[in-house]
Amino acid sequence: MKPFFEVQPVEAVWALAEAVAPLPAETAPLGEASGRTLAEPFHAPHDLPGFARSSMDGYAVRARDTFGASEGEPAYLALQGEVTMGQAPAFALRPGHCARIGTGGMLPQGADAVVIVEHTREAEADLVEVSAAAAPGAHVLGPSDDAARGELLFEAGHLLRPQDIGLLAALGQSRLLVSRRPRVGILSTGDEVVPVESPLGPGQVRDVNSLALAALVRDAGGEPLGLGLVGDDPALLRAAMRRSLAEADLTILSGGSSVGARDLTAEIFGEAPDARLLVHGVSVAPGKPFLWVSTGTHNLLGLPGQVTSCQVTFHLFVEPILERLLGRAARPFLRFGRLRARLTRNIPSSPGRTLFQRVRLAPDGPAWLAEPVVGRSGLLRSLVKAHGLVQVPLGTEGFESSSMVEVLVFPGERLPWPAASGGAPTPTP
Amino acid sequence: MKPFFEVQPVEAVWALAEAVAPLPAETAPLGEASGRTLAEPFHAPHDLPGFARSSMDGYAVRARDTFGASEGEPAYLALQGEVTMGQAPAFALRPGHCARIGTGGMLPQGADAVVIVEHTREAEADLVEVSAAAAPGAHVLGPSDDAARGELLFEAGHLLRPQDIGLLAALGQSRLLVSRRPRVGILSTGDEVVPVESPLGPGQVRDVNSLALAALVRDAGGEPLGLGLVGDDPALLRAAMRRSLAEADLTILSGGSSVGARDLTAEIFGEAPDARLLVHGVSVAPGKPFLWVSTGTHNLLGLPGQVTSCQVTFHLFVEPILERLLGRAARPFLRFGRLRARLTRNIPSSPGRTLFQRVRLAPDGPAWLAEPVVGRSGLLRSLVKAHGLVQVPLGTEGFESSSMVEVLVFPGERLPWPAASGGAPTPTP
Repeated sequence: MKPFFEVQPVEAVWALAEAVAPLPAETAPLGEASGRTLAEPFHAPHDLPGFARSSMDGYAVRARDTFGASEGEPAYLALQGEVTMGQAPAFALRPGHCARIGTGGMLPQGADAVVIVEHTREAEADLVEVSAAAAPGAHVLGPSDDAARGELLFEAGHLLRPQDIGLLAALGQSRLLVSRRPRVGILSTGDEVVPVESPLGPGQVRDVNSLALAALVRDAGGEPLGLGLVGDDPALLRAAMRRSLAEADLTILSGGSSVGARDLTAEIFGEAPDARLLVHGVSVAPGKPFLWVSTGTHNLLGLPGQVTSCQVTFHLFVEPILERLLGRAARPFLRFGRLRARLTRNIPSSPGRTLFQRVRLAPDGPAWLAEPVVGRSGLLRSLVKAHGLVQVPLGTEGFESSSMVEVLVFPGERLPWPAASGGAPTPTP
Repeated sequence: MKPFFEVQPVEAVWALAEAVAPLPAETAPLGEASGRTLAEPFHAPHDLPGFARSSMDGYAVRARDTFGASEGEPAYLALQGEVTMGQAPAFALRPGHCARIGTGGMLPQGADAVVIVEHTREAEADLVEVSAAAAPGAHVLGPSDDAARGELLFEAGHLLRPQDIGLLAALGQSRLLVSRRPRVGILSTGDEVVPVESPLGPGQVRDVNSLALAALVRDAGGEPLGLGLVGDDPALLRAAMRRSLAEADLTILSGGSSVGARDLTAEIFGEAPDARLLVHGVSVAPGKPFLWVSTGTHNLLGLPGQVTSCQVTFHLFVEPILERLLGRAARPFLRFGRLRARLTRNIPSSPGRTLFQRVRLAPDGPAWLAEPVVGRSGLLRSLVKAHGLVQVPLGTEGFESSSMVEVLVFPGERLPWPAASGGAPTPTP
C-alpha cells in the first residue's frame, strides 16, 4: 500500500464515517445507563401508571355528583372512607359519596374525578362540602396516560438522559441493552516527546496529546486505552498497533507531523490485516494530515501531532466515528452548543480548505462578540483561550468584521451568561 | 422550628445559593482532572515551550542570510548539519549556513527563522537553494510563546476542559488541587413507592427519582450516595437523614408531595443540629414545594415527589448549590444549551409564579420551532418528550404563538441539527 491519494473534502470524510458499523450491544444496569445509547427499540412492557391515579390531594368523587356545585350552592357528599397510599381501595365508591385521597393515590372503583382539597370543607363528621364542580377525569391520570402497553417509547440509537432513566425505572427496567462503549487505543509518537512526569531536556516537549485525547474520548462516550509513547521507532509503533488491534475498536495516533513520520505511520497502519486506506489528507485547516485506515472491523486514525490541530481533528473526524460505533448518526459537533455572535475582526478563508477558526466569546449586552484567536500554528494557548469554532466553508472568502456568524461552542463550556438572564427572552441580535 | 414561611421568588433562592461555601480541595491525578474544578489559581512553573522551536519542516537559517531571496534570485546557503528531534543541536549556526530541522525541532544558536521545505531545494551536496526570504521569527515559536514563567493561566474555580489538561500536561503538572466532588445523599419517600426491581401491586409506583437524580448528580459533578426508600416513616426518615449528615455534603429528598408529608420532611430536617430553614416554598412552576434547610455545613433539600417537578427543581435549585460547592458561581442552567425558537402555540403564564414550560424542538429549515409540551401534572412523558425549557418571567402574561423565545436546552441533548449544517452560517431567524 503506497498510494498516491487525493486530499478529500470534510464532507467526504463524514460520508465515510456514516458507513462505519455500530459495535455489538451489551447489558448494563439502569443505574449506569445514563449517557449511554439504547441498542434496540424500547416498547412499554405494561401500561403506566397502570391504574387511575390522583394528581392532587383532595377527594375522589363521581363527577356527576358535583355537577353545578359552586361556592354559593355547594354539593354535599358523604365521606365513605380514605384511600391508603400504595394500596387498592378496599371499597367501591357509592353514588353521593366521596373518599379522601392523596397525590398519587389510586382511585376507588366508581370514582372518575378528584376535587382538590382547596374546593372542599369537612362540614360535619362524614359530610364533605364541595364548592366547585369536577369534570370527569379532573386531576386524574388515566391508567395508560404515561405509556400504553406495547407503545414505542425510544428508538434504537437513543442517547439516554436522566429523564429517560426515570421513565425506564417507572417501567421496571433494571437492565438495558445498550451499545458497548468503543475502546480507543491512544498512542503518541515523536522522538522529542517525553512523559508528563519527566523533567524537560533541551529540545523536548511533554506528551500533551495522550491525556487530552483520553479526556475527549471519555466525554464522547468511549473508553480510552493508553498505549504510551513510542517515539518514532517503527518496531515499537508496530507492536503498539498490534496491541490496539487486539484490545481496542479504534486506534488514534497523534504525532508524526513531519512528512517522513506521516509516511511511516501510513506504512505501518497499512500492515494491519485487510487494511484499506480511506483518507490520507483532508482539505481542512487545521487537520490536513488526517489519516484513516480501516480493516473492516477496526479503524486506525492518524491525527496531527500539533496539539491544537490534534484536538480540532478529534472533534471533526474521530467523534463522528465514535457516534457511529455507538449506533448513532455520524455527524460532527453534536455535543457542541451553538450561538450567533458578531465578529470583532475579519476571518480570512484558508485557500482550498474548509477553515475552523478558533474564537473567544465575550458578552455584549444580551448578545455575543466572537474574537478570532490568532497565533502561530503549534500554540497550545490558542485552544485554551478559545470557547469554540467558526466554520468558514471551502470556496468562500471568509467573514468580515462585524458580520454575524454561528459559533460552535465546545462541549461543557461554561460561558459567562448574564447572571440575571436565566432563560429570559433576549432581543434577537 | 415550626415557622410560617413566605413563598420566595426564584431569584431569592439563587441569591441564597451564592452564599454557600465551597468544599475543601483535594489532589487529583491530571488524567482524572478533566471536568473537575481548579481549587487554586494556576501559574506557569516555567516558560513554554522553553526553547525556540520550529513550527514547520524546513531549514533553520539566519533571516538576514535570506534577505531578498526569490525564485528568480535564490539565496544559496551551506548545509551545516541537521537538528535531531528532542535534542539541543550540538552546533551554533554560522553565517551563510543553514541546518535541516523538522516540525518541533529546537533552533540552533544563531538561527532566528525557518524556511519551509517547499521554498528550498538541495541544489548540490551540502548546498541549499532558498527561493523565498524569511523574516526574523518566521515559523518559530519563541521560548515563552505558549506561557511565560509565573504567568496566571487559570483562575481558581475554572472548570478543566480537555485542552486545559493538554496545557497542564505540557507544563508537567501530573497532580492538581481540585474541588472535592460534593457527595449527595439521595432519599425517596412515599408509602406508594416501591423499588425499581419490584412488581407493581395495585396503587403502587416504582422509585423513579432515585436513579434519575443519581444521574443528574453525576452529570453536575457530584457523587451520588443512595439512601434508599423510606416510605413515610418518621423513624426511617430520621435515620436516613443522620446517615446523610454523617457521610454526605448535601441531602436531596424527593417525595412527600402531599401537605402532610411535606410538613413531616420539614419537621425532621429541622431536627438536624443547627438547622436553619432557608426556603419553604418558591413562586415557581414546577417546583413550588422546594424546601431548603441548612446546618451551616450541610444542606438538606426537599424536592417534589412528582417526577417532572423533581427533575426541573434539580436543575433550578440543586445544580446552582452544587456549582457553588465546587467553587463556582451559583447560576442555574450553566450546563444548558440555548437557542432561539418560534413558538407553535401560546404559553400562558402561571399567575404569581415564574413558569418553566417544557418544550419540544423541531427544525424548520435553518430555524427552530418550539412546541410547548402540555399534559397533566404528574406525567413523566412530558419531560421525556421535551428538549428543553422556556422561562416565562413572573408578572408577565406569557408568550403568544409565533413569538420568538429563548429555549434552555437540556445538557447533552442531541438535537436534530441539519446534517449538512456543520458550523455553516445560517440566516438569522
